[in-house]
Amino acid sequence: MADGIEYLIEKNALEEAVVKYCVAVDKLDDLDFMMTNFTEDAVLDLTGLELPRFEGHEQIRGFYTQVFADMSHHMHILTNFRVVKLAGNEAQVYAYVTGMGRSKAGVDIQVFVYYDLDLRKSDGGWKISRFFEAPQLPMPESVTQVHKKG
Amino acid sequence: MADGIEYLIEKNALEEAVVKYCVAVDKLDDLDFMMTNFTEDAVLDLTGLELPRFEGHEQIRGFYTQVFADMSHHMHILTNFRVVKLAGNEAQVYAYVTGMGRSKAGVDIQVFVYYDLDLRKSDGGWKISRFFEAPQLPMPESVTQVHKKG
Amino acid sequence: MADGIEYLIEKNALEEAVVKYCVAVDKLDDLDFMMTNFTEDAVLDLTGLELPRFEGHEQIRGFYTQVFADMSHHMHILTNFRVVKLAGNEAQVYAYVTGMGRSKAGVDIQVFVYYDLDLRKSDGGWKISRFFEAPQLPMPESVTQVHKKG
Repeated sequence: MADGIEYLIEKNALEEAVVKYCVAVDKLDDLDFMMTNFTEDAVLDLTGLELPRFEGHEQIRGFYTQVFADMSHHMHILTNFRVVKLAGNEAQVYAYVTGMGRSKAGVDIQVFVYYDLDLRKSDGGWKISRFFEAPQLPMPESVTQVHKKG
Repeated sequence: MADGIEYLIEKNALEEAVVKYCVAVDKLDDLDFMMTNFTEDAVLDLTGLELPRFEGHEQIRGFYTQVFADMSHHMHILTNFRVVKLAGNEAQVYAYVTGMGRSKAGVDIQVFVYYDLDLRKSDGGWKISRFFEAPQLPMPESVTQVHKKG
Repeated sequence: MADGIEYLIEKNALEEAVVKYCVAVDKLDDLDFMMTNFTEDAVLDLTGLELPRFEGHEQIRGFYTQVFADMSHHMHILTNFRVVKLAGNEAQVYAYVTGMGRSKAGVDIQVFVYYDLDLRKSDGGWKISRFFEAPQLPMPESVTQVHKKG
């Protein structure tokens, strides 16, 4: 049973790490808190959304700076969380996210995506080292209107 | 590891208490069962929805009597559950809820809110002592049409 | 506390079994993987959706063969998971599912249902022995358009 318990404790810690990311992205006002979700060498790969790939804290912080400037409301609904790999301090998890929001320009967004994340555990707990998301359902036009700048 | 296990057991009990509330509000036909979700001195604070603040079982029961009379369908989808405080028999939890329903008058409702709840543990398990909810995304007009009586 | 731990481990295994079903139904391309979710004598009862009742692997596989042929996208969002019975190797669970998809013919589907499932545990872990779902909110017309063939 000890194995089962150990797994539950780590699975819960991993899910709480991803919920914490959702808290940060939905607060829309705390970049320092957002950055605590990522390892220093993290990759935020949004190519699945036809957006860029960001490497390291400076680039990732730049992306969220823009997102927080653009949006007035956010709600990221996390479900179907599952651990696909767990080996010591390295893990990979999948989840569904219904990502909703309203831009300051008044555009409402609703996207249905999956997250495919690597997380690494250190003294600071589990942090995201690789963040990939892509549409689970066909994407509406509104997303690129808001986030992709000419 | 014992601390981790104890926390998981309480977190699960807290989440089950909130899921149970969702079962009760979605059944739409069992006021006694609904009231088992609240401590005797509970406060149901709906001021975040521009609705009243109800204190104690009699007022809370009155509110749900009206809700159950108004609605033909309910579905409260609970996600992003998290424990923000846990100290002995007192806890505070947050969650997202997508609240949907159809009124008997034929009005469809869909709201995107967060719950901010205090729960207290006694012989009867965890019960809600303070219930606050507010919009996470801008609210449609339909909600106040159905629940706010002139 | 041992009882509490044992329950959490089984509850998690049951939820993972249902999440695994969602993975299978959303992949839309692996019938063998889909069938690992069901006991040999499973009943897939879709009469709550005004669709047939399927008994045993051959009939169930036939149903998903058709579904996978019809649909280009699927997303089954699982929430409000709860264990209503757990006795040894037999369990009953409820959950909410927001079932979404797009048919190859271009019809978008979104249904709000509940799952009422029996699961049985064997060497292969928990598998579904009885699958029943029904609308939690009124059903749109589009569902029967796609899945019910003349």
